[in-house]
This record gives sequence, C-alpha cells and structure tokens, in this order.
Amino acid sequence: MPLLLIRSDLSRLAAADDELDGAIDAVEKSAVQCASGDRAQTLFAGLNLAGGDELAAQCVSLASGPATLRRFPNGVKGERPNAWLGMQLDGTTGAVDSMIALDDFNVRRTSAPAAVGVRHLVPADATTLTVLGSGAQARSHVRTIRRVMPDLKHLKLWSPSHESRTAFGADLRAQLGDAVRVSVADTVDEAVSGADVITAAGRHSLGEAAIPDPGCVRPGALVVSMTGAGGNLLAHGARLAVPTAQRPELVAFGFASGFIGKTPPPAPSGALELTDMITGKAPARTSDTETIVFELAAPYQWDVPILAWIRAWADERGLGTSFDFSG
Amino acid sequence: MPLLLIRSDLSRLAAADDELDGAIDAVEKSAVQCASGDRAQTLFAGLNLAGGDELAAQCVSLASGPATLRRFPNGVKGERPNAWLGMQLDGTTGAVDSMIALDDFNVRRTSAPAAVGVRHLVPADATTLTVLGSGAQARSHVRTIRRVMPDLKHLKLWSPSHESRTAFGADLRAQLGDAVRVSVADTVDEAVSGADVITAAGRHSLGEAAIPDPGCVRPGALVVSMTGAGGNLLAHGARLAVPTAQRPELVAFGFASGFIGKTPPPAPSGALELTDMITGKAPARTSDTETIVFELAAPYQWDVPILAWIRAWADERGLGTSFDFSG
Repeated sequence: MPLLLIRSDLSRLAAADDELDGAIDAVEKSAVQCASGDRAQTLFAGLNLAGGDELAAQCVSLASGPATLRRFPNGVKGERPNAWLGMQLDGTTGAVDSMIALDDFNVRRTSAPAAVGVRHLVPADATTLTVLGSGAQARSHVRTIRRVMPDLKHLKLWSPSHESRTAFGADLRAQLGDAVRVSVADTVDEAVSGADVITAAGRHSLGEAAIPDPGCVRPGALVVSMTGAGGNLLAHGARLAVPTAQRPELVAFGFASGFIGKTPPPAPSGALELTDMITGKAPARTSDTETIVFELAAPYQWDVPILAWIRAWADERGLGTSFDFSG
Repeated sequence: MPLLLIRSDLSRLAAADDELDGAIDAVEKSAVQCASGDRAQTLFAGLNLAGGDELAAQCVSLASGPATLRRFPNGVKGERPNAWLGMQLDGTTGAVDSMIALDDFNVRRTSAPAAVGVRHLVPADATTLTVLGSGAQARSHVRTIRRVMPDLKHLKLWSPSHESRTAFGADLRAQLGDAVRVSVADTVDEAVSGADVITAAGRHSLGEAAIPDPGCVRPGALVVSMTGAGGNLLAHGARLAVPTAQRPELVAFGFASGFIGKTPPPAPSGALELTDMITGKAPARTSDTETIVFELAAPYQWDVPILAWIRAWADERGLGTSFDFSG
C-alpha cells in the first residue's frame, strides 16, 4: 500500500545536517551502480502553465528495479504548497510505492551529487569554499558541501543582488557561529579569488559562465557546475569531470518554456569520470595545480537514491500514512 | 488542499452507464474548446520496467488553465493495485489539486472520445454495432457507444480468442437482457458484415489493419479506430475523420518499449474534423454510402475532461479525502 509522507513528517530530516551524509552516500552508490552496468532510462520534460510557470516532470527507471516519478513547478522560487512531489514506483509492477512531499528536498537532488564530487575532487588541504548564488540551491550546497569539507575555515559568498547576498551571509553567520568565517564579496572575482572549491549554485542559464574571468580561479581549484557554467574555464585549461559517462538513456525530452532548449548531448568523451575514481580505476588529479570543473548538467537518476534515502529514514521512524488508492 | 479519490469512492461512477453521458459531453466540449484556439501541450512517454512492463506517463496543460498528469503501467491487462493514477494540477501554480485512482477509468479516456465520434458520424438509422476485441477497452466501448446509439438492436462481437469472445458475449447477454441481441462471430468478416458502426477496440499494434478485407464493410458504415487500424479502408475509398486537427503540441515523446515507435505525425490535412461538424462548419457526410474511419490515435488532451468529469461527480457527493502534502 502506498505510503504518503508529508512535509511535516520529514521536517526533522530536512533540518538535520548529519543526515545529509546518507543522501551523499546514496547518490554516490547509485552513480557507481549505474557506471557498473545498471541500465537506467529517464524522461525529463516541462509544459507551459497558464500562469507563466512550468510543470516539469522527471521519471527514472532502473534495470535493477526501482523507478521514480517527480513533478515540480520549474519557475517558482519561494513556497508553493503541494507542488513538489516525488513518487517511488515498484520496478516490476509500476505501482505507486510512496508519495513524498519534496518541498524541502527538491534542491537536494543537485546538492547531494555536488557534494559527491567535492568529496572526491577537493584539492588537498582545502579550507575555503565559495558559493555563487543565494537561493535555495545555494543554501543547500553550503549544507551538503560542508559535510565533505571537514577542514572548512572560510565561506565566501556572492550573488548578483547585494541585499540577497548580505542576508545569506547574515543567516550563515548566525548558523555557523565561530566554526567558519563567513565573508560576503562585492564581486565574483573577489569571491572566487583564492578559493579551493567554488560552486556555481545561482540561477545561471545553461552554458552561461559563472566566473567571467577564469584568471581569478586559483590553479588546482575545484569548480562545481550544475548548468555548464564552467565552459570558459575548460577553454582556459581546466579539466572536465562528470559523475559518470553512463547516464540514463534519455527516452523523452522537451521543455516548452525553453528552460533547456536543446536535447542534452551525450557525456563528453575524455572527461574524468568520478565513478572511475571512486572504484579506483582512475586517479583524481594529474597534478596539484590542475583545475577541475565538475559538471552536473544532464538528466541523471538521482531521484532514485534521494527518494530511497528519505523513505528509509521515514521507515526507521514509522512515519507516514498508508493510503490504498485501489481500496 | 489536494483531494484523494480512491477506487471505492468512485465505484458507483464506474458502474453507472447513465453517468457516461457526462464523460462524453466533457470530451466533446474539450475538443471544441481546443479546436477553437485553447492551446494545449502534452508529453507522452514510457520507460521500461524491470519486470517487462512499461511505466507510461502523460501530462497535459491547457492555456486556459488546468493541467493533468496520468501514469499507468502500459503492458498489464488485469488488476494492478495503485498503478493507474491521475492528477489534476492547478494551471497557474502547478500544485496538485487531486489524485484520482483510475483503475476503472483509464479506458474511458479512449472510449469516451470514441463515443463522441459515433454521436456525430453514425449513419442514419444505425441499429448494428460490431466490437472487435474483448478486453477492458472493448467492454468500455460497448458501454459508451450504446449511449450514443439509442436505436441499437444488434451487437456483434469478435476477438481472436474463441474463449474470450464467447465469455464476452455471455457477459453482455446477461447485462443487456432482451434489449439488444448479442451475437458472437467466428470470423472478423462475419462480425463486420452489415454492421453500421464497427469499433476496433482490440490490442492492435499501431497501423495494423483491424479488418483485413475492406470489402466486408458495408458502404456508409462508420469504423472507429484507436491505433490507425483503418488505413486499408482509406486506401479502399473510405474517408478519414479526426476529432480535431488542433492537437496538443507534443513537447516530449518517447516509448522505450517501442509501444509507439515513431513520433506521431501531425494531423493529416484534408481529414474531416469532428469539431467542424459539431460547430456547424462542415456537414457530416457527403453521401449515405460514404464509409468513414474515425481515427483517435494521437496524444490528445482527453485526460483534462475525463478527470474533471470524475472530480465534479465526487465533489457533488462530498467524496474523497483531503490530504495536505505540504502540511
């Protein structure tokens, strides 16, 4: 019988930083599983809504069994009740196994994979993280990436709006206390300069450079991108890394809004595959001064491990409401 | 707050033949609305499941507001709890407005549009209906088409399996009593011969001829197809009719299983548009002996009127359970 998990069922999980390790581990394990031959398929699409927003949906199925369906409004930034919803589906029957409110978790689909990349690609002795952006995605990146940068001393922030970045800085200072120094930069260049890890977690359009001047990035840094935001760094000699080249087969794709205008190209050949590093097939870096761009932009199967992580946490605590739609 | 409607909430609606008029009216109204300029978009896709079935999904959005998401296992024939589910979505916010168990209604998405076609294209003085097929779709076609053929006297059945068609015939005799004569034919030719309306409601593959010998169809008959099953009749001089040429924009499409191998072509030019007849722009038939093939194969927006019809019935009766996912 399907289990319904509402936002308040999951509020403790949403708030708990130490639980994020489970999400990061689950995403990493899923990437390795797919790289090792578990065939995945996905559909990723969006339809225009009358109000100007976009109804987006992603489905994933795995040859090993589980499948997921996630739907979300693509344009909204703030609260929107009952609009972010994920379903776990039985991999054999296709029946609904759970319905999970993703109000507080939709961003985790990107910030957990980002942390998997940082875990394995972070430069030695990294102490400085720069976050570009100040929205929900940026806030989630700070939380997940902190889990894999235990020596983090300095958090540098920048986003286009002075008001937003100042507020974000104040929030983080209140949360982090003396553990981490938080500074708000006035320019991208200042924010990026000297950082060991930089994550482009703002609302960039696909392919838009997050760091206009590649010269500001210190050699050997790791730059995390969700939107092809590091193309100019690659042209400047940085190395491309991807989670795995074994991405899900893209069965159906299209965004009426133009959110992603073109069908994503296949994984570039020659990129460093994170899963090869994790399984010991490839070393992380050829030198300490090699700058790496970890690129997450592509439809992956992350919904499967993220929903499984949420579901396992709820099951351990006996949370949720069983509801028989066919009863 | 989303309203959850389970199968038992809707069992009286599923069983009531006279309620089908509402579904047929709703589908007809929706077709006219789209033909009159209400822009629709759709995604229609399916992913392979580990057990050999297919996870299929369709989303629809309308410029005038409502949107829907429907998911279903594409291969299963019998019961499968919690596997057929439709959602009404707020057209402005994209939030979930209802979740509706479609166990007993998924087939209505095709049988209600079929009845709209019969309502307007049926030959004068039609008394004989032939149903090819004996599954859930065929059973639903008998119910909806009867609503628009009040003078029906003779129901002729055929499906490939002797056992299935005999059982279907027995079931229908028990249901219909003396009102309608039910006969089970041994061959397609025998079933089709002399029929005024023929509906190809079996499991044909796309483009497969349902009536191998077009000469068996009496001139002036109406043939209803969901799968391009009347192509050979068109080659034999029959006229093509479609619900409307103003189909939803197909934003994303793909079936990993090969269920529908190729992206559906645009509506053929020169076909009779049912909506033109309904609105008085075109006459039904140029002569009493003109055979018409009414073709339903294409992704339409039928989910919107069908789910709205179910929802309105439930609201009138105060049925369902409100459930706040973001609570």
